[in-house]
Amino acid sequence: MSPPTPTWRRLLAEFLGTALLVTAVVGSGIMAATLSPHDVGLQLLENSIATALALGTLILTFGPISGAHFNPMVSAADWLLSRRTGSGLTATQLAGYTAAQTTGAITGSVLANLMFALPPVTFSTRQRSAPHLWLGEVVATTGLLLLISALTRSNRSTAAPAAIGAYIGAAYWFTSSTSFANPAVTIGRAFTNTFAGIAPASVPGFVGAQIAGLLVGAGLILALYPNPRQTAERPTR
Amino acid sequence: MSPPTPTWRRLLAEFLGTALLVTAVVGSGIMAATLSPHDVGLQLLENSIATALALGTLILTFGPISGAHFNPMVSAADWLLSRRTGSGLTATQLAGYTAAQTTGAITGSVLANLMFALPPVTFSTRQRSAPHLWLGEVVATTGLLLLISALTRSNRSTAAPAAIGAYIGAAYWFTSSTSFANPAVTIGRAFTNTFAGIAPASVPGFVGAQIAGLLVGAGLILALYPNPRQTAERPTR
Amino acid sequence: MSPPTPTWRRLLAEFLGTALLVTAVVGSGIMAATLSPHDVGLQLLENSIATALALGTLILTFGPISGAHFNPMVSAADWLLSRRTGSGLTATQLAGYTAAQTTGAITGSVLANLMFALPPVTFSTRQRSAPHLWLGEVVATTGLLLLISALTRSNRSTAAPAAIGAYIGAAYWFTSSTSFANPAVTIGRAFTNTFAGIAPASVPGFVGAQIAGLLVGAGLILALYPNPRQTAERPTR
Amino acid sequence: MSPPTPTWRRLLAEFLGTALLVTAVVGSGIMAATLSPHDVGLQLLENSIATALALGTLILTFGPISGAHFNPMVSAADWLLSRRTGSGLTATQLAGYTAAQTTGAITGSVLANLMFALPPVTFSTRQRSAPHLWLGEVVATTGLLLLISALTRSNRSTAAPAAIGAYIGAAYWFTSSTSFANPAVTIGRAFTNTFAGIAPASVPGFVGAQIAGLLVGAGLILALYPNPRQTAERPTR
Repeated sequence: MSPPTPTWRRLLAEFLGTALLVTAVVGSGIMAATLSPHDVGLQLLENSIATALALGTLILTFGPISGAHFNPMVSAADWLLSRRTGSGLTATQLAGYTAAQTTGAITGSVLANLMFALPPVTFSTRQRSAPHLWLGEVVATTGLLLLISALTRSNRSTAAPAAIGAYIGAAYWFTSSTSFANPAVTIGRAFTNTFAGIAPASVPGFVGAQIAGLLVGAGLILALYPNPRQTAERPTR
Repeated sequence: MSPPTPTWRRLLAEFLGTALLVTAVVGSGIMAATLSPHDVGLQLLENSIATALALGTLILTFGPISGAHFNPMVSAADWLLSRRTGSGLTATQLAGYTAAQTTGAITGSVLANLMFALPPVTFSTRQRSAPHLWLGEVVATTGLLLLISALTRSNRSTAAPAAIGAYIGAAYWFTSSTSFANPAVTIGRAFTNTFAGIAPASVPGFVGAQIAGLLVGAGLILALYPNPRQTAERPTR
Repeated sequence: MSPPTPTWRRLLAEFLGTALLVTAVVGSGIMAATLSPHDVGLQLLENSIATALALGTLILTFGPISGAHFNPMVSAADWLLSRRTGSGLTATQLAGYTAAQTTGAITGSVLANLMFALPPVTFSTRQRSAPHLWLGEVVATTGLLLLISALTRSNRSTAAPAAIGAYIGAAYWFTSSTSFANPAVTIGRAFTNTFAGIAPASVPGFVGAQIAGLLVGAGLILALYPNPRQTAERPTR
Repeated sequence: MSPPTPTWRRLLAEFLGTALLVTAVVGSGIMAATLSPHDVGLQLLENSIATALALGTLILTFGPISGAHFNPMVSAADWLLSRRTGSGLTATQLAGYTAAQTTGAITGSVLANLMFALPPVTFSTRQRSAPHLWLGEVVATTGLLLLISALTRSNRSTAAPAAIGAYIGAAYWFTSSTSFANPAVTIGRAFTNTFAGIAPASVPGFVGAQIAGLLVGAGLILALYPNPRQTAERPTR
């Protein structure tokens, strides 16, 4: 039995992981838009594949330290769903995680800008504000939280890195909003006026939709996986 | 030993899983056709990658609850091949699964339409009706059922999520019909006049071919894996 | 301990597996060339991704029955490298496997042609005959056999389906010949005048290079993995 | 307990593995640039997918013999971080690994050139020399070493082949330098005037940045994973 990981190390892992996640999202977006100027779909394909692979490896890298949330909605679901058992984050830890994730996300945007010889910060001018996009964010967030909880609650966490990367890679395509599904990353992506950017004025709408997705997701988790640690059973397969 | 999962929870999992599967198929098809207007192959590449990744994660999400069939042919094969041992679905459960899958598939089509700001329902005008396409559906369904049964009957079900996603991703390309291989999803895809749609008049031909694939597949399974639970052996590798 | 798998079942598995592999290669090639007419690279990308995913799932489907060789060079390496210990194929079994694989490959080509409404057989007119292409086949076959033996000889066969699919998917790109690496598949691909075809006159050169790859590969295996069943050790990672 | 792998066999594995890695990088680059002449992004997509898949399979092939470093920075991190415990490479072994990797990389470039009917050696004329590219190499190398050490130090090395392949596949896109992250491969890629080449004059800058990445990475590893062999724990997921 190892001693518990100290808080500073967990917050460092959340900061670095979220930073590198946003670096991957923004950086691959810049590369894609530069090299494939004729087809926006091809740009999104390149961006989504790079994001899926990067996210999976970042969860592998930082998972044993902090759980590799990189996402305030994931941390909030952890806090919300484990309050009774006390096995998850406390409210204080949730605040710390959220702060580390958000500052990490902004840092990641700056790092991507610098790697591609752009000014460190340019706020995005890309409007992403419409009811159908918000519906996309609700769906994206709900599905993400369902997946993560299903894995946690059935002792299959070793599948999480590949699965979560795959989910986001798919959700880039099947949601109209290209699946931000993450308030910290949404804020971070406001700091770059490139392919993956989002105008600051569009951020609150996306974050609101993500919170709605958190609530829908939490309700479905309680309906489907009421037991925090059930055995993986596969009734009919 | 956990108590058995109640029926309502299993049906909810089949409903949600099939809905989100069709949302992924239809939604990524709309996104692909919109963003890559110049090359239909690129559209199918984007659509197939998104579908493969989404399907794998949905099986992970709902597998422990219902077995994650999402497909009346998979449920029917389960019923058909386990009647002697009684270890699979009963006829009543098969009917429930099929109803949940079909209503879920239609719901998923509506959700995709709404996410992309389209009317909730527009019936597809895309004809998919020709003997060589039906042959494609027979091949697609046969191969799918063979894969699933091979994994089940040799205790390798943990490989199912990635494997089934990969199979469908490939079969989009190697079958002439782009591998629907699923009556519920076929019906659901009639409710959207977008990239992934199928004209209602073409649905019965596809479903008939899928039933033929079920029979061919069941025959091959009994020839290759006569024992419902054999040990995974790898004789010469 | 299960009784040994009867020979007819193993040959059926090799026949079906190789048939479906060639169906996947040829069928996805037809689909890619039809839908992406403007960029041959995009066609190869679509063809290679579909092949990689299909091959992995076919190994999962048929592996427990026959070992899922689907390739006379793989069967020959098995026979060659296990003659001393007697743990692999006998010469008679090698002949049976080769016959099942070759007839399967031809059948698979016919099935793909039929699925796409083409005549059942049209011999390819695509010349693939040049020393640098033969070098490509030597490299492709050597690498394939090294990978398979490395997995077998270090008790990591569960990684084989994904790994072999991935290897072929990559080798489509990094070898000049697009990595046939398989005499049965090479013969089968002569029976279709489509994207994946090879002119019958080019077949002997490819098969000769594949046999050369078998010899190089077997030599390297004996140098690197002299012990048929060594423990997986990872000395410095 | 097997006897230790003899040094010659480990060096042969590093030589062959690095050679085939560079063959994959350079060869797939040539194929991509030839077949997809209209879109550089599509070329990079083809090149990156082929590299990711090839790298994963090469680590599977050679890992049990030598650890499958294929990269002097990986070997140097192993030496640097295990000096206290003596569980890693000695300085002499590090020199041997580096020599095998570098000669292997050059050989791999020559092999790729020959497979595509080019002269065995043509030095690249592609300048890759700018501060933002060097920053890209620092990020790429840091992330790679963090991933590898995280896996090693938490007993998850079986995930390394897929994870390292995925990481490089992503980093091709999210770093401005397309992530060489490897001095031996950088030198090898100077020997081909094709898509993946780098002008000899640009090599020292890249190698210097990679060494900087080694130092940043080693510092972060010590901060995050101070214990060389800690148990994989997932505190909050």
